[in-house]
Amino acid sequence: MPSSSSTDATTGADPAAEPQTADRYAAFARSPLGRRVVPGLGLPDPVPLRRDTPGAPLAPGPVLVTGLVGTDGHEHVGGAAGVAAAELAAVGADVVRRDALAHVDRLGGLVVDATTAGSPADLVGLVGACTPVLRRLARGAHVVVLGLDPAALPGGATAAARVAQRGLEGFTRSLGKEVGGGRTVQLVLLRGRGVDVVGSTLRFLLSGRSAFVSGQVVRVGDPVHDLPPAEQARGPHPLSGRRAVVTGAARGIGASIARLLVARGAEVVLVDVPAAADALAATARSVGGAPLVLDITSDLAPGRLAEHCERAGGVDVVVHNAGITRDRRLRNMRPDAFAAVLDVNVGAPLRLTEHLLGAGLLGRGGRVVGVSSLAGIAGNDGQTSYAASKAGVIGMVDALAPVAAAAGATVNAVAPGFVETRMTAAVPPLTRQLGRRLASLGQGGLPVDVAEAIAWLAEPASAGVDGQVLRVCGQSLLGA
Amino acid sequence: MPSSSSTDATTGADPAAEPQTADRYAAFARSPLGRRVVPGLGLPDPVPLRRDTPGAPLAPGPVLVTGLVGTDGHEHVGGAAGVAAAELAAVGADVVRRDALAHVDRLGGLVVDATTAGSPADLVGLVGACTPVLRRLARGAHVVVLGLDPAALPGGATAAARVAQRGLEGFTRSLGKEVGGGRTVQLVLLRGRGVDVVGSTLRFLLSGRSAFVSGQVVRVGDPVHDLPPAEQARGPHPLSGRRAVVTGAARGIGASIARLLVARGAEVVLVDVPAAADALAATARSVGGAPLVLDITSDLAPGRLAEHCERAGGVDVVVHNAGITRDRRLRNMRPDAFAAVLDVNVGAPLRLTEHLLGAGLLGRGGRVVGVSSLAGIAGNDGQTSYAASKAGVIGMVDALAPVAAAAGATVNAVAPGFVETRMTAAVPPLTRQLGRRLASLGQGGLPVDVAEAIAWLAEPASAGVDGQVLRVCGQSLLGA
Repeated sequence: MPSSSSTDATTGADPAAEPQTADRYAAFARSPLGRRVVPGLGLPDPVPLRRDTPGAPLAPGPVLVTGLVGTDGHEHVGGAAGVAAAELAAVGADVVRRDALAHVDRLGGLVVDATTAGSPADLVGLVGACTPVLRRLARGAHVVVLGLDPAALPGGATAAARVAQRGLEGFTRSLGKEVGGGRTVQLVLLRGRGVDVVGSTLRFLLSGRSAFVSGQVVRVGDPVHDLPPAEQARGPHPLSGRRAVVTGAARGIGASIARLLVARGAEVVLVDVPAAADALAATARSVGGAPLVLDITSDLAPGRLAEHCERAGGVDVVVHNAGITRDRRLRNMRPDAFAAVLDVNVGAPLRLTEHLLGAGLLGRGGRVVGVSSLAGIAGNDGQTSYAASKAGVIGMVDALAPVAAAAGATVNAVAPGFVETRMTAAVPPLTRQLGRRLASLGQGGLPVDVAEAIAWLAEPASAGVDGQVLRVCGQSLLGA
Repeated sequence: MPSSSSTDATTGADPAAEPQTADRYAAFARSPLGRRVVPGLGLPDPVPLRRDTPGAPLAPGPVLVTGLVGTDGHEHVGGAAGVAAAELAAVGADVVRRDALAHVDRLGGLVVDATTAGSPADLVGLVGACTPVLRRLARGAHVVVLGLDPAALPGGATAAARVAQRGLEGFTRSLGKEVGGGRTVQLVLLRGRGVDVVGSTLRFLLSGRSAFVSGQVVRVGDPVHDLPPAEQARGPHPLSGRRAVVTGAARGIGASIARLLVARGAEVVLVDVPAAADALAATARSVGGAPLVLDITSDLAPGRLAEHCERAGGVDVVVHNAGITRDRRLRNMRPDAFAAVLDVNVGAPLRLTEHLLGAGLLGRGGRVVGVSSLAGIAGNDGQTSYAASKAGVIGMVDALAPVAAAAGATVNAVAPGFVETRMTAAVPPLTRQLGRRLASLGQGGLPVDVAEAIAWLAEPASAGVDGQVLRVCGQSLLGA
């Protein structure tokens, strides 16, 4: 994440807004000339991503579900493969197993069950499973490797099993950097009864909803509450009947989040500061939600939000999207600017969440989603305040997830990388190009990519995804 | 870490060898013309790093030890500041506190005790502590921020405290990217009785021994055994009387490790494969250690190494440095090459360590140090096998640290970034330049930088550093 210039002090809306930056390099790469020149020169090849559209199939072709394949050609299938095949077939995916591969030309997805790997030597089964089919993966095909969370293996597990399962992370992150063509690769680590509730995560990761997510590790464990009926979970409106609050929603990423949550069935309250009241009202009308003018940093904010939620009969989903930047190197930092960034980006979200949890308004089925940042993970030149606040959001997830889980709610965060917004449009050109290209997907994301990740976490069916921070960054090469 | 070409199959020595790559850009930047051009153009400015030399002072000037400083000018001093001041003064550092700052021109180091931060708002005290003195930090000065491990705060700690302490990570990683001039910034997180045993870590991080370490987080907790007498711990030979084994020691980083351990007082056994026997013998003679020809992947290797150690009366330090690469994208991967990388890099280290632990040969005061890699953390194009093996090394640390701790030993790893070796000299020029420059320190490291980190972990005084993976990468911007 390149640093960005300071933004308007009068709005609590996320400084990211209107995704209208023309990515001229991407346009060139997709032109007839670019298509001839770019691959030959080894330049980044930012192909158009396969994003979700209503009615689109889950994947751009059949999905192969396979176990590890030993050097003897034997396939080692764990229970996770069967669950994955059933979950994907239930939403209409054309699931194929190895014995039917001869009838398939291009694959639209690949799921490798590596949960059976019990020693480093077993990892060679990844070669048997993947190498013969990698050239047949369609553009935009998504790969998911299923493993066991090494930190949560049963007491009797050997060190060799922990080493093998931990090794999967290096494998998948590398493969994400190799596949190209808008393909993505993730590692899903199961713990406890996670295998029983992995459906929502597989649907998200195999579909175009995760187009800008790659090279990531997602843990799925014991659900914090019972799951909804399968038909609702797998339908087009997984958020129907859910009441959601999105802060910083007047424009930019916040408006995109509100719009998507509405489209997926939720009733959405859009929150923003008084100075953005007009834009907020217009956005609320446009997306079909209700506006709530509120300065989240004020002392009265927790009580007022709680009151608002109480009148609506509770709240299911809270998305802490509001954020500001006041970028300046620490040697030139003013304490009040530093303090403001901390308070808007993490102080207020923490107070609001603790108040709602304490008042019993965020209970069974509740979802809190924070917005961290690549800067909060890796740090960034000129962003000591912003990075501290966004690392603090990760701390909020760690601190509150256990508290919320006891009430049947989850707490997670997304960490956007380079997303095309008004904020990134203000970044100097060279920095902007690096932000886009230093990523496996070779381009910036769109606000909807962040919204999709949040909508997935907000689903009732995602009850097994808790205490996680998901990077939505096109596998940016930057990190810690 | 850029991918490297496959290396000689006949040697188990780390493929990295002889650090003889001329970094021509660095030479240019340090020339009279470069000194005029580079800063003005915003180009990377790889200043010569301040590395340790015998008899050199800890820091290139007085070290300021401070607490957080509120907007009212009040300094909040925790107990950690007092300990840090005493530990540094005991090794001859000129420690100053805020009230004596007026008498100081350039600072050679800065320690900020942020353990008192109990809420996000308290983090503004970092501005009061740092901003007024940042311009006075000498080139090569090192900064350490002291915090509390948010994952190990006492049960009564508030969520606000966890958020604040977690926020420190974003702050320090950002500051590391800002300071320039060969300066480094780290975060030390204390847990349990860690504050009582933080001395070896502070000495390492403030001194030139950590010249190529920046932007990292180090946890210091309950020591797994009693510490040695202070005089020995703080003297020039902290490893005196220690018996060490270094694999892949015939050349390259392994030879550097062996040489440094000997210089710090250890008796060292250098291990390498039969094909490298001649080089091994020469290196052993040169560094003053004993050669042991052994293929670590053979079935007999654990027994033979144990026998060798038993004859010597035990072993205190095992450094698993041997490693190979067989780089190829997964779509072109051969199973046998994939399997070989896994077995040499993590299978054999795991078997050797488990055998030594099981035989009671690695006990109280023992140290196991694995060598992971940036590729094992972030993945790398063309390195699915290498990255899986190096992620596996992290899994080995996680799996064996609790087992070893019960016996009074620690298990840690280092994760080198771009280090100038025979391996990186073979990398294509543009990739090589990116590997060097995409880092806060703007240059590649030297084998001795990896060796220094290992020597620190090997010290008896580092008994509170356990289960850690330390990147030695000049704060490479790459990561996960």
